[in-house]
Amino acid sequence: MNLIETYKEDFITYLNKKVKVKEPTNLYEPIHYILQLGGKRLRPILTLMTCELFNGNVKSAHDAALAIEVFHNFTLIHDDIMDSAPIRRGKTTVHKKWDLNTGILSGDAMLILAYQCFETYEPTIFKKLLELFSQTALEVCEGQQLDKDFETRNDVSIPEYLKMITYKTSVLVATAMKMGTIIANAKEDTANAIYNFGLNLGIAFQLQDDYLDTFGDAAVFGKQIGGDITENKKTFLYLKALEVCSIEDKEKLLSYYNSDTYNEFKVKEVTQLFENNKLQEITINEIEFYTNKAFVILEKLSISEEKKLILKNFGLSLMKRTI
Amino acid sequence: MNLIETYKEDFITYLNKKVKVKEPTNLYEPIHYILQLGGKRLRPILTLMTCELFNGNVKSAHDAALAIEVFHNFTLIHDDIMDSAPIRRGKTTVHKKWDLNTGILSGDAMLILAYQCFETYEPTIFKKLLELFSQTALEVCEGQQLDKDFETRNDVSIPEYLKMITYKTSVLVATAMKMGTIIANAKEDTANAIYNFGLNLGIAFQLQDDYLDTFGDAAVFGKQIGGDITENKKTFLYLKALEVCSIEDKEKLLSYYNSDTYNEFKVKEVTQLFENNKLQEITINEIEFYTNKAFVILEKLSISEEKKLILKNFGLSLMKRTI
Repeated sequence: MNLIETYKEDFITYLNKKVKVKEPTNLYEPIHYILQLGGKRLRPILTLMTCELFNGNVKSAHDAALAIEVFHNFTLIHDDIMDSAPIRRGKTTVHKKWDLNTGILSGDAMLILAYQCFETYEPTIFKKLLELFSQTALEVCEGQQLDKDFETRNDVSIPEYLKMITYKTSVLVATAMKMGTIIANAKEDTANAIYNFGLNLGIAFQLQDDYLDTFGDAAVFGKQIGGDITENKKTFLYLKALEVCSIEDKEKLLSYYNSDTYNEFKVKEVTQLFENNKLQEITINEIEFYTNKAFVILEKLSISEEKKLILKNFGLSLMKRTI
Repeated sequence: MNLIETYKEDFITYLNKKVKVKEPTNLYEPIHYILQLGGKRLRPILTLMTCELFNGNVKSAHDAALAIEVFHNFTLIHDDIMDSAPIRRGKTTVHKKWDLNTGILSGDAMLILAYQCFETYEPTIFKKLLELFSQTALEVCEGQQLDKDFETRNDVSIPEYLKMITYKTSVLVATAMKMGTIIANAKEDTANAIYNFGLNLGIAFQLQDDYLDTFGDAAVFGKQIGGDITENKKTFLYLKALEVCSIEDKEKLLSYYNSDTYNEFKVKEVTQLFENNKLQEITINEIEFYTNKAFVILEKLSISEEKKLILKNFGLSLMKRTI
């Protein structure tokens, strides 16, 4: 078993011990349900890993890791309501399995439970962790709002899109890592560098998600290819295409994205249009830009080469989707 | 201007200074909207008042008072969604004025903003306040869940009902007061006594709400009389009536509560049934029981008689609905 798997197993054991159904069961059962649905457990693994890399006791990072995972799953419940999504991780979403009210209220309780996870830390660390957590949680809400706003806007720029994915996804990855360093009592500039490493890796990861949704292999990606095009999602590919392609292609793309009906032909056509306009190369370049930015930050850190390699390998395996 | 009005004005000035609309506006405008809708500002007044009563600087209680008010208004937004309520404080509810998603997401952001309000306190006080706040916030969610559960249950007991209103309403009143004492650095047993004073007063207040909804004067109560009966709400009056009345009256009451259509005749008939079964006296006795319980706790406190009188008068004016 490799290091990542060890952290994951360690975390799941802790999660199972801590998350129990209690009264009123209609409030706590959906919480138990979503936390047991699986998932990569990427964020808690990052907290445990960075804590140990900076000579902290991995056990002392368990509660922060749990807080991050509980928070992440709270956002999934509420986002699934907002997106009217019926399926999450191959299972029925909370608001479909129960109802809208249950989804709202159990989600609210999870946000509070996430805060409570930190109560085992002593006051100074507790406050540091909570300031970071609240700021990040609010940014995640802002990211979700921007995402919703973009659905009805026709003038979303690439910098705006990058801001949205940074807030909606990357800040939580960055925070998961920084929390590990805070618990390990690392220096502030090191903690901030780790945050920026996570932030850039998170952006690269999300851009790769956009890429794989159109150009990936369904078996590796784990989702059906073409979903974003089917749903008219304004991804990096779409927004960049509008920026670089000819007026003819632009009109074609806009007209496809104005149609709501599912159409296999549409997915093929839009994919072809993206290919013709070199969106594959452009997006890969952008992914590499953020991955390299993360690795440059890592290089400058004053930690052992061995530890740098662990973080770099983690980043690489994340980008190869082997985690 | 009396003391209560001074605290209220003081709080509103602080609220207006602190709560600003920023980007993304679709997230922050609804927050600004609900916080400007008015309301009694009962909870923040209690925080300011208890802080000053225990020799704390009232200014130092501003942020805790704001946190409590922001949290309370977050629960109003999400509760209004769950109740499909179109009107709040005479104005359109957030999910009606905007939409469901906005109501969910702005509410989520408010819960986080409430936590952030505490960041001005030094770590030890910060942690104390947050532990109390999280516990209470979770109890409020549990109270809301019990309330929802009761809608479809036919066997709700009076102790269960009292637990529900305690969690849904009273714990936040109690916490608002206890926070004032924590900030003023009062002794722990004093802080706990104040909590219990607030808790019992809160229960009395909620029972009075049930009473006034049927037997009150619309002009003083501020809401239309008979709303609970119209909506088949399982209030103290209803549950206690089922407990004390004859089999005939019980069947009559159950059949009225099985009808969904609005009926002026129904309100009259159920009110008469409550009167016949002495529900007025029974409920007034219960209200007095909890009010007196609060006042006995107050008597035992080792604070000056003058301060006891301020708290007692506050309790009395609250129960007379003159605040």
